[in-house]
Amino acid sequence: MLPWKTIIQMQKDCDTPVYLQIANSVIHEMRKGRVGPGLKLPGTRQMAEILEVHRKTIVRAYEELDAQGWIEMHPSKGTFTSKELPEINGRHFTKNHNQNAFPKTTGYHVKVNTGIRTPVLPLRHIMGFHDGPDMRLIPSDELGRAYKSVLSRNTYLKFMSYVETPGVQKFRATLSEYLNASRGLQTTFENIIVTRGSQMALYLLSIVLFAKGDTIIVGDTNYYYADHVFLLAGMKLARIKVDEYGIDVDAIEKLCRKKKIKALYITSHHHYPTTVTLSAARRIKLLSLAEKYGFIIIEDDYDYDFHYLSSPMLPLVSADTKGMVVYIGTLSKTIAPAIRTGYIIAPENLILELMRVRQLIDTQGDPIMELALIEMFEEGHIKRHMKKALLAYHKRRDFLCGLLNEKLGDIIDFKTPDGGLAIWAKFHKSIPLPPLTEKLKAKGLILSNGLIHNTSSVSMNATRMGFGWMNEEEAAQAVDLLAQTIRSK
Amino acid sequence: MLPWKTIIQMQKDCDTPVYLQIANSVIHEMRKGRVGPGLKLPGTRQMAEILEVHRKTIVRAYEELDAQGWIEMHPSKGTFTSKELPEINGRHFTKNHNQNAFPKTTGYHVKVNTGIRTPVLPLRHIMGFHDGPDMRLIPSDELGRAYKSVLSRNTYLKFMSYVETPGVQKFRATLSEYLNASRGLQTTFENIIVTRGSQMALYLLSIVLFAKGDTIIVGDTNYYYADHVFLLAGMKLARIKVDEYGIDVDAIEKLCRKKKIKALYITSHHHYPTTVTLSAARRIKLLSLAEKYGFIIIEDDYDYDFHYLSSPMLPLVSADTKGMVVYIGTLSKTIAPAIRTGYIIAPENLILELMRVRQLIDTQGDPIMELALIEMFEEGHIKRHMKKALLAYHKRRDFLCGLLNEKLGDIIDFKTPDGGLAIWAKFHKSIPLPPLTEKLKAKGLILSNGLIHNTSSVSMNATRMGFGWMNEEEAAQAVDLLAQTIRSK
Repeated sequence: MLPWKTIIQMQKDCDTPVYLQIANSVIHEMRKGRVGPGLKLPGTRQMAEILEVHRKTIVRAYEELDAQGWIEMHPSKGTFTSKELPEINGRHFTKNHNQNAFPKTTGYHVKVNTGIRTPVLPLRHIMGFHDGPDMRLIPSDELGRAYKSVLSRNTYLKFMSYVETPGVQKFRATLSEYLNASRGLQTTFENIIVTRGSQMALYLLSIVLFAKGDTIIVGDTNYYYADHVFLLAGMKLARIKVDEYGIDVDAIEKLCRKKKIKALYITSHHHYPTTVTLSAARRIKLLSLAEKYGFIIIEDDYDYDFHYLSSPMLPLVSADTKGMVVYIGTLSKTIAPAIRTGYIIAPENLILELMRVRQLIDTQGDPIMELALIEMFEEGHIKRHMKKALLAYHKRRDFLCGLLNEKLGDIIDFKTPDGGLAIWAKFHKSIPLPPLTEKLKAKGLILSNGLIHNTSSVSMNATRMGFGWMNEEEAAQAVDLLAQTIRSK
Repeated sequence: MLPWKTIIQMQKDCDTPVYLQIANSVIHEMRKGRVGPGLKLPGTRQMAEILEVHRKTIVRAYEELDAQGWIEMHPSKGTFTSKELPEINGRHFTKNHNQNAFPKTTGYHVKVNTGIRTPVLPLRHIMGFHDGPDMRLIPSDELGRAYKSVLSRNTYLKFMSYVETPGVQKFRATLSEYLNASRGLQTTFENIIVTRGSQMALYLLSIVLFAKGDTIIVGDTNYYYADHVFLLAGMKLARIKVDEYGIDVDAIEKLCRKKKIKALYITSHHHYPTTVTLSAARRIKLLSLAEKYGFIIIEDDYDYDFHYLSSPMLPLVSADTKGMVVYIGTLSKTIAPAIRTGYIIAPENLILELMRVRQLIDTQGDPIMELALIEMFEEGHIKRHMKKALLAYHKRRDFLCGLLNEKLGDIIDFKTPDGGLAIWAKFHKSIPLPPLTEKLKAKGLILSNGLIHNTSSVSMNATRMGFGWMNEEEAAQAVDLLAQTIRSK
């Protein structure tokens, strides 16, 4: 007889009833081929004795196995494992068997995609020049109340089920109103598809608009995760220099004369990563080039809401009468990265095609979050937050820039950015960033080594230093540590 | 002089300050090319008179325009629009100008993807045989409290920023524990990547594992949105018959002998849409075929948690020692479709590649929802809910099946399903579903016409009738209306 006492695994303090644990153990062994087909099982009384459980438990276990077709119970002959289960070679029972651990690797080849960087663990619990909004400023209590309120309304129950593919209509209407007022647009909710942050917006566009081999113009240097979305779609990147007025529009014109350009990707408001704003003259020329040469402008306006000098320039899309611009925005910077609510603004025919593909990638959005955000807009929490945050970040920018000039002016070359939450900091070549940032990390201070911003043609000793994340006290401490580490070299 | 009074649009009761409205109007016109470069603007006093606003307002507007580079102010000569703005042909000022409406269509060609159905508006506010859980049963108050609690904890603030690409680690650990206990697995959090529902799980796998031209086996018929994910990835579908024991495994073996199969997609627990469970014998054979022929099994176990007859069979992945199975699950059915939290269970090398691509599609998940779900698991709300829901759906299944047998046994052919939330209902050919469902819709009752389940080889007059959505009273009313509509034909 098989060593049933060893084979059958039971645990007390387990949520699964004992009879089910027994049945599952038997099934497990049959699956592994270690208990073969047509095998006679001990009677219920005998098995109960072996396993030291009540006989009724064994009766229920056998009934369960019978119901699932694993065993056959013959009143006269006894209980047998089902004959229809094919014997599996090489899976014989061994004495020192254990529940198998989960497979360490796949049984088939998985291509390692070295083209895309390995995701890194965010270390936001450690002090640092993190690029992004300060979580201590976000209206989290208001958000908590909004969520609770949404989930306690019976009239909202239908939103807990399947909802509209492009986002809850009322949320799109709210967004449309906000965008029209703040960005000089004339959209309706039908020009909007809500996405998971601006990243999904970019990805969706890459699938719907582009084909393998298409050429897209991007800045040199450009946002890493945008470049790689286009590369994943099989596109060719045409890199164009970015200077202090933004991307070089004359160079774009020259390129367009030479070859067919399918699209251009631009963070016009604050070029990522260098923070420069595309000048008014270049904006107008860019639009007319798009019309003339028929290329699509993907305008990623990820941080429109953070501008300190004067009110931000209106986005390109606001002057687009021919439907050449697709506009991407997000609330992930405005509120918090965890609020992964982005959107695409486009003519309706494109929105429809984006909806089709969105069904396959991500059935629908998050109606609970969308309804909570409607409340946040309607109650004025978002506007109040933006005002408060803008003031705080303005002060933090000035404070950090002042400190850096004072203490590290000879090492770090930068311009005070007009907006956004980070400084584009070019470090003196005598202080290479990778070893410096390693040293800082060991001391508990995070600074990106900036390698992600290099391209095949541009290699810089530069990085983005976030000024939004730390208050003045923290920034002073961080700059001290940075200066100390650099000077002690 | 230009008709400034007409050109400059101002609105009272608008959040934008008046000076900004004026500046934005001027920019708008310059962008459209209707106010050309080098044009002299009226002095501040004169403009104030024209627009009937305070002179200081004009001063601020001009300062704004100057700061943004749109105009040049010469103390002696006056104020001029910037000369550097290129004149744009064909955009001359016209008298009857209006703010332009948003473009109706794109200025470039967008391919219409007729292969994927147009998203339909969900009509869950209308009574119907909807396929999915009843929103009235979900623990929404508990969920609301969990969200609020998460958002009010200062220690959780760091989760509002960027988090781990595959999902918050503690949530993956919670899921792992739950899956190990309920599905006989031996996973750790490192075998899990959290996705937006099972749909994104499928999509991610299609991008990472497959290449254009690969063949994947699917059921005939199969889940529409899975088929189309594979088609979008350029794969070929090899359809295999599904009978009352699930997919025909002998036919799979025959096919494998003839051609290279890359993968197989299966909803083993309750085949979608026909609800049959893959038999134990076929499961074992399928696993050994995957090992022998090296094809990947994608096991989509979307409704494992709903089973009425006995406990559900353990999934294929629980017996997979060679790493051939990738397992997909979701909480969207278990709790509510709005909780778009799915997951992929796989060996770590595949999880890493999935993470890489996930960064490009959707930076990260929703840490707020994940933290709220940890609370729901820890407080026992999810277990309690599942128990309560299972009981309710069991009763509703029996009630609806009884009614259908009694009142429409001659029209509708079905088997009481062992699990899930829907009946696979084959309607008599004398009652074609499309016109019937149209009539029902007009009477305020939703029934899917089932066309989505047809394939090029299988055309059925069958549909899924959800029994979970309606309580007994509603179901009785719905069946009455259905019978009446059919009989009055």
